[in-house]
Amino acid sequence: MASKSFYAIISGAGSGTGRATALRFAQAYPVVLLARKPESYNSIVAEIKQAGGQAFGLTADATDETAVNAAFESIKKILPGSKLAAAVYNVNGGFAMRPFLELKREELDASLDAAPKGFFTFAQKTLPLLLESVPESPHPPTLIISGATASIKGSALFGSFAAGKFALRALGQSLAREFGPKGVHVSHAIIDGAIDTPESKDWVANNGAEDGKISPDAFIKIAETYWHLHTQHRSAFTQEIDIRPYVERY
Amino acid sequence: MASKSFYAIISGAGSGTGRATALRFAQAYPVVLLARKPESYNSIVAEIKQAGGQAFGLTADATDETAVNAAFESIKKILPGSKLAAAVYNVNGGFAMRPFLELKREELDASLDAAPKGFFTFAQKTLPLLLESVPESPHPPTLIISGATASIKGSALFGSFAAGKFALRALGQSLAREFGPKGVHVSHAIIDGAIDTPESKDWVANNGAEDGKISPDAFIKIAETYWHLHTQHRSAFTQEIDIRPYVERY
Amino acid sequence: MASKSFYAIISGAGSGTGRATALRFAQAYPVVLLARKPESYNSIVAEIKQAGGQAFGLTADATDETAVNAAFESIKKILPGSKLAAAVYNVNGGFAMRPFLELKREELDASLDAAPKGFFTFAQKTLPLLLESVPESPHPPTLIISGATASIKGSALFGSFAAGKFALRALGQSLAREFGPKGVHVSHAIIDGAIDTPESKDWVANNGAEDGKISPDAFIKIAETYWHLHTQHRSAFTQEIDIRPYVERY
Amino acid sequence: MASKSFYAIISGAGSGTGRATALRFAQAYPVVLLARKPESYNSIVAEIKQAGGQAFGLTADATDETAVNAAFESIKKILPGSKLAAAVYNVNGGFAMRPFLELKREELDASLDAAPKGFFTFAQKTLPLLLESVPESPHPPTLIISGATASIKGSALFGSFAAGKFALRALGQSLAREFGPKGVHVSHAIIDGAIDTPESKDWVANNGAEDGKISPDAFIKIAETYWHLHTQHRSAFTQEIDIRPYVERY
Repeated sequence: MASKSFYAIISGAGSGTGRATALRFAQAYPVVLLARKPESYNSIVAEIKQAGGQAFGLTADATDETAVNAAFESIKKILPGSKLAAAVYNVNGGFAMRPFLELKREELDASLDAAPKGFFTFAQKTLPLLLESVPESPHPPTLIISGATASIKGSALFGSFAAGKFALRALGQSLAREFGPKGVHVSHAIIDGAIDTPESKDWVANNGAEDGKISPDAFIKIAETYWHLHTQHRSAFTQEIDIRPYVERY
Repeated sequence: MASKSFYAIISGAGSGTGRATALRFAQAYPVVLLARKPESYNSIVAEIKQAGGQAFGLTADATDETAVNAAFESIKKILPGSKLAAAVYNVNGGFAMRPFLELKREELDASLDAAPKGFFTFAQKTLPLLLESVPESPHPPTLIISGATASIKGSALFGSFAAGKFALRALGQSLAREFGPKGVHVSHAIIDGAIDTPESKDWVANNGAEDGKISPDAFIKIAETYWHLHTQHRSAFTQEIDIRPYVERY
Repeated sequence: MASKSFYAIISGAGSGTGRATALRFAQAYPVVLLARKPESYNSIVAEIKQAGGQAFGLTADATDETAVNAAFESIKKILPGSKLAAAVYNVNGGFAMRPFLELKREELDASLDAAPKGFFTFAQKTLPLLLESVPESPHPPTLIISGATASIKGSALFGSFAAGKFALRALGQSLAREFGPKGVHVSHAIIDGAIDTPESKDWVANNGAEDGKISPDAFIKIAETYWHLHTQHRSAFTQEIDIRPYVERY
Repeated sequence: MASKSFYAIISGAGSGTGRATALRFAQAYPVVLLARKPESYNSIVAEIKQAGGQAFGLTADATDETAVNAAFESIKKILPGSKLAAAVYNVNGGFAMRPFLELKREELDASLDAAPKGFFTFAQKTLPLLLESVPESPHPPTLIISGATASIKGSALFGSFAAGKFALRALGQSLAREFGPKGVHVSHAIIDGAIDTPESKDWVANNGAEDGKISPDAFIKIAETYWHLHTQHRSAFTQEIDIRPYVERY
């Protein structure tokens, strides 16, 4: 099978979208999971293996360039000769909801570290690999970025978080325009529901309507759209997409 | 099979996107094709039948309310007891590229007739049927609207065409917000390549790059994304999407 | 004074923005007011005259091409030899807030008549006059269009109104791009407060906060921004602008 | 005169927009100019004084929190008892136009330092002062941010620059929503012409058309719009505005 020699990588694998994307892409490829702590990926790796797939967890803070570099070196040993078909940047961080005058500069820094800076490193590592895969990849090599409502709207009290997410989208647009014509599909997805962070776990979104909060099952559905983006033919790329629960007011 | 008792309808079936959508949805449902002239759907109906699917052509000008009403009456006889799973509004018309002071009011009228007015009638006919299908449809009942770059950008010389397409998108947004919470998925897709009209047939888009113009094959790929929209779970709806060739400058 | 031989015209003079714009532009130019009924402009004409300005009311339904043509013929007699410096399209109509399946096609038609169709006629009459004024006008000849929140967002229940307003903005963008390089400043202003229609008169917007609803005085402030648009130098044109009360949530 | 006891501050005074804004606001207020080097403000301070205004230059790198803090301490001594009426953040930096895989992480950092980070510090210093001025300021206290086309479009090769500018706009939107209802006008202006940086000085924009590049005179016109933003009444605030030469293609 051609696709046997291709793999996918997901940075920020520990969140709902991360886990779901890993499960979905593992149906087609061996999957490498990057997360800050083994606790974030261990159970997902086990879940994938149980389902008959291949998965590998690597520990690296997406904002730590050296750790990310080391992770990519490890991949060469874990999957020798395998090529990169899809890369997903799904890192969250720097979430703060607070009056501006109470925000600390460190909170802005954390948002910028997790979003544009961490992605910058990830993209510089993955794009050369994706370019190499263009001639043989079963689907156009794909780089997917997870965004949020804060990627397009700077709401009151969400300034520092939105700053990171806006910047991330700027990079995504620029890369889509630069690498699309070279055959690499770069796509930015706005997940417009309860924000996918541990902090939001206890929110009651959309008044608790059925399917109104993005549930673990719902993340699986989001992952179907990620997979669809990956399988789009180069004559019909989508560079930006919104995904939200049917009850979401927007 | 549950889906045996559901059907899809495509208005404006004669264009590249229309044909491709018909072929794709015919893999799952009997398909009703609406077009102004039998020549527009006859060969597609034949193609679908040859592939083992079911298809029916009906002649109706989308801008003629009476003709559209009659078509929906016919469907009840052709597919008795069958329910509507998906409706696609893909009508083009009113394309004019001309200095504003040379435009005739009739050209603006033609654009508004083909876009917001024709869609208004189509949506008033199909939404009650789609609402009825919510409890049993194999996928969330779906109303898809085909837009163009002119749906979001009023370029010089494209004013009258953009007026229709902007208005169509306004209706799409409003319906997505009103009917989404009721379980009907309304989605607006911008096909951002050489415009899908007979008039554009001879354009050499994107300097003739391979896959750079939306070829008949490319329309098939676009239809895959339409099908994906239809199969999205209600916890992960996409209301607006752009689809463009990898070489498209935007 | 050079500006003595220039005039301004306001279509839809009867609303809050229309009246305020007339008063402001009358400080510099004779002003022609177009409205459907004399009651809409009589008191404004009186107000301007009392303040020492010149104003003329003409009765014409903006959606009636023949009536609009006749009005422009009248202007030649009223202000012989005077040139057009600024034209403002401020017509409202077709406002309906209603579930889509209860809307009548006539309501959509009314919205399209008042917005893109009425403006089309107005623009075809005024743009040739504005082009003629480029060499001598004290400020770049200007065509200003009044929009609303519904110009950029199709909210639930506002579909038909938004269809008209979106289409109007499409024309505005196209004309800005076509006529800007010729020296005519086309600008679209979104008045994002309680909608400027007689129907909205009794709304309590923004919980009744001081300056939270667009009061008659507030419209005067909006008119200052319209005047500023008119006086922008051609090296610094604004083609789209939002104007909203400080308490407005958006 | 009430306005005697109010002042304005401009960070990034050395550029075309900075100089022009300083000259314009100096017609109403004493003006404090912040720039990295005295060479950037010395001649502007002289120009303002010659015209009969008051101006003070302070040396501070906008990305250096300590230096900015010191500058604000100095202002208390230079203008004792005076209150802040308007603050303009006009800092450029981190401009790079380069294939993504050749970009260095330091170039992204420089863009983020100059845009969201520098502005964060500036806004945390100025917003408390602007809030204090609400009751007495001759016009609503105003915080204006200078953006660029890269604030809303991530073009190919402009990724790192756009990342900073997008993030800056995110903060601007959030602050507009948080501080508008408190009476402080926060506004983000996109100057959509040849980019206002020393590096762009030699570009031939818009094929050299008259007024096609933003000339020193044109910047004066842009400054008129900044001044207009400052003088908008709180019932008619503009939070985002585009300003571009009449010949600009967009």
